[in-house]
Amino acid sequence: MDKILLKNGRIATVKSKGPKFGGEMADLGVIERGYVVIENGIILNVGSGDGADFVDDKTEVIDLEGRLVLPGFVDSHTHLVHYGSRENELKLKLEGASYFDILKQGGGILSTVRATRSASYDELYKKALKSLDLMLLWGTTTVEAKSGYGLNFEDEVKCLRVAKEIEHPIDIVSTYLGAHAVPEEYKENVDGYIDLMIEKVMPYVKKKRLAEYVDAFCEEGFFNLEQTRRVLRAAKELGFQVKLHAEEIEPMGGAKLAAELGAVSAEHLVAVSEEGIDAMKEAGVIPVLLPGTSFYLRLKKYAPAREMIRRGLAVAVASDYNPGTCPTESLQSIMVFASLGMGLTPQEVISAVTINAAYAIGRGSEVGSIEKGKKADIVVMNALNENYIIYHFGINHIDMVIKNGKIVVRDGKLVY
Amino acid sequence: MDKILLKNGRIATVKSKGPKFGGEMADLGVIERGYVVIENGIILNVGSGDGADFVDDKTEVIDLEGRLVLPGFVDSHTHLVHYGSRENELKLKLEGASYFDILKQGGGILSTVRATRSASYDELYKKALKSLDLMLLWGTTTVEAKSGYGLNFEDEVKCLRVAKEIEHPIDIVSTYLGAHAVPEEYKENVDGYIDLMIEKVMPYVKKKRLAEYVDAFCEEGFFNLEQTRRVLRAAKELGFQVKLHAEEIEPMGGAKLAAELGAVSAEHLVAVSEEGIDAMKEAGVIPVLLPGTSFYLRLKKYAPAREMIRRGLAVAVASDYNPGTCPTESLQSIMVFASLGMGLTPQEVISAVTINAAYAIGRGSEVGSIEKGKKADIVVMNALNENYIIYHFGINHIDMVIKNGKIVVRDGKLVY
Ligand SMILES: [Zn+2]
Ligand SMILES: [Zn+2]
Repeated sequence: MDKILLKNGRIATVKSKGPKFGGEMADLGVIERGYVVIENGIILNVGSGDGADFVDDKTEVIDLEGRLVLPGFVDSHTHLVHYGSRENELKLKLEGASYFDILKQGGGILSTVRATRSASYDELYKKALKSLDLMLLWGTTTVEAKSGYGLNFEDEVKCLRVAKEIEHPIDIVSTYLGAHAVPEEYKENVDGYIDLMIEKVMPYVKKKRLAEYVDAFCEEGFFNLEQTRRVLRAAKELGFQVKLHAEEIEPMGGAKLAAELGAVSAEHLVAVSEEGIDAMKEAGVIPVLLPGTSFYLRLKKYAPAREMIRRGLAVAVASDYNPGTCPTESLQSIMVFASLGMGLTPQEVISAVTINAAYAIGRGSEVGSIEKGKKADIVVMNALNENYIIYHFGINHIDMVIKNGKIVVRDGKLVY
Repeated sequence: MDKILLKNGRIATVKSKGPKFGGEMADLGVIERGYVVIENGIILNVGSGDGADFVDDKTEVIDLEGRLVLPGFVDSHTHLVHYGSRENELKLKLEGASYFDILKQGGGILSTVRATRSASYDELYKKALKSLDLMLLWGTTTVEAKSGYGLNFEDEVKCLRVAKEIEHPIDIVSTYLGAHAVPEEYKENVDGYIDLMIEKVMPYVKKKRLAEYVDAFCEEGFFNLEQTRRVLRAAKELGFQVKLHAEEIEPMGGAKLAAELGAVSAEHLVAVSEEGIDAMKEAGVIPVLLPGTSFYLRLKKYAPAREMIRRGLAVAVASDYNPGTCPTESLQSIMVFASLGMGLTPQEVISAVTINAAYAIGRGSEVGSIEKGKKADIVVMNALNENYIIYHFGINHIDMVIKNGKIVVRDGKLVY
């Protein structure tokens, strides 16, 4: 196996014993001039100085000349596997059509469901692979992938199998999101669809280990509080951990429900109330915020990230990559909206896409920081400090990506 | 010289006899399945079909498989040549400091002036070269470059010489912006600084052909209406064409002044009045809008682009690339803000960064559209239609860039 020494880097370790709560997010545990040694896919050591003690014949020594080193980005909320694209809806959006208007016109999520059902396993696989390459090029090394465009047994399983079986350097954590929307054939029988999920799909997904998490879209016109509770309680009984799409558009009490259910995370939260924030804090629910979606939906409103940090929550930020409301794979681009849109400092943004994101998908002990013994998932940026990568926006700052101890992007190009 | 045939492309020619006014901006003159032949740096022909008649032994034939072909992007407002970067101001901005607050704390434009004065010609040259490479990678083939960080004779000339002498595929159109800010040494004597510009700098710049345009920053705390008028009238007498930074923050009447002076363009216009818009329309002044700056300054307000189009103006969009208020070279990233921020359709955005931008810097007869006889400045996008490049935001869609008939970017990588 490769042994690599990165030296003369500015290393933002993002070291932490758990998620970074509130004010802790600003502290990235920076080593001004330091090294990282990598062996057998693992971080063997990290420290200040040049790490010369660790060099042997087999070591590739890389002098970073002061460049910034960060943990590989963790994208904790994506809808990776789907088919088709929806650029034709952009015009409606610009004319002022809402998410719901577009849905009513036969567009929106259900048009992606039609395309995804029609697509073969191989077509979905190829499309997902292309997206993963883009994610990697922009610095993402771990991705959460939600199903939810099949909405029946066969097609949900098809999508979850793609996420499980796809061969790519990026690690994928899978979430079953059958409760993403009510499929057309169950339009008049939501409970029947919930029965299908509970009795047939979830037990199979569990048995075949096709997902670790179950998620549900708790929103007006999708699943109400009671329906969401039913899905997620059943999921917990089957041994899944749970997540919620909550308070994206209307405040419905999803954050409180996440707290009640002991969800690992609640996601979106644009319309969350102060009581909701406090309930999440109390229950240790991680808010996963998706500022790219606010931007792309032209909401002129972002989740109250500053308020969450003030109240001591461990905020995560993710891309929400999906074909309708945030069609970008670049978490690095989303980081700019987290800062300039939601008001997070670059340091807080980095915590939100590394350590906190890792905890939001149950990988906090493996990735999300540059610490001895963790997976060697590391990015080198063409930048000398953390502020610069937000400041110099609109371009890709990735110089190098190391995934599981292997260099997979070099000089900004895929080399895996 | 190279002869190239691009075939099987979706060609948005952006054909036009002049700037595209109002509703014309939506019409890109698309050839659904067409070809472009390039010889001796010029577009020899463009049409539908496969262009087979034009192929000879020396022709490189490139099958685009349906991909979108656009005129090379024209970035009609940048502050290309400067030194230093100002990521340290980001924190102040996030804490709510205004442009003026930062200026008062010794930051802002005058800190870039200090850095630029201290930098050597070679340092400025190298930094500008790096920026030009980024611009080219993101699809820009012609750039307007304003001076304005020297603010004395020697340093303004130094910066203008860099812009004139730099060797790079991108063509540069130069603008003297001595009236960008009042330099510290003239703080109490603005008229003295204006005298210096009029009596010494501008005549020299004209004689040495260091700039085609003269621009001035007409804004509270910079140059008032009367001072701006004085600078630009003198410029016209010397034979320059003129431009204005107008109504960026406060409505001061800059748009009307632009009309009065017969300026080629007025730029920013976030705070422009309806009267200002109509005056510009009347006088044929092109509005150059800079939505990235609204975003980066967190203004929550964009220039009224839709209103301008409704009133029949020929809107251009540019990056405003500069180290303080819009530190990005990527016009392609700015195009997303032009659409999702200002509400332009992708088609209107494309007109705004090609033909209208070309007219905004006096190059409308040479570049900005794919027409027989024009310069072969062409980009091929990894996209099948115009909507897609806005829709799939946050990444770089450039596949190929052709500049003056030569392929300078291939597979998204510099090859010049
Ligand atoms: Zn989602
Ligand atoms: Zn400017």
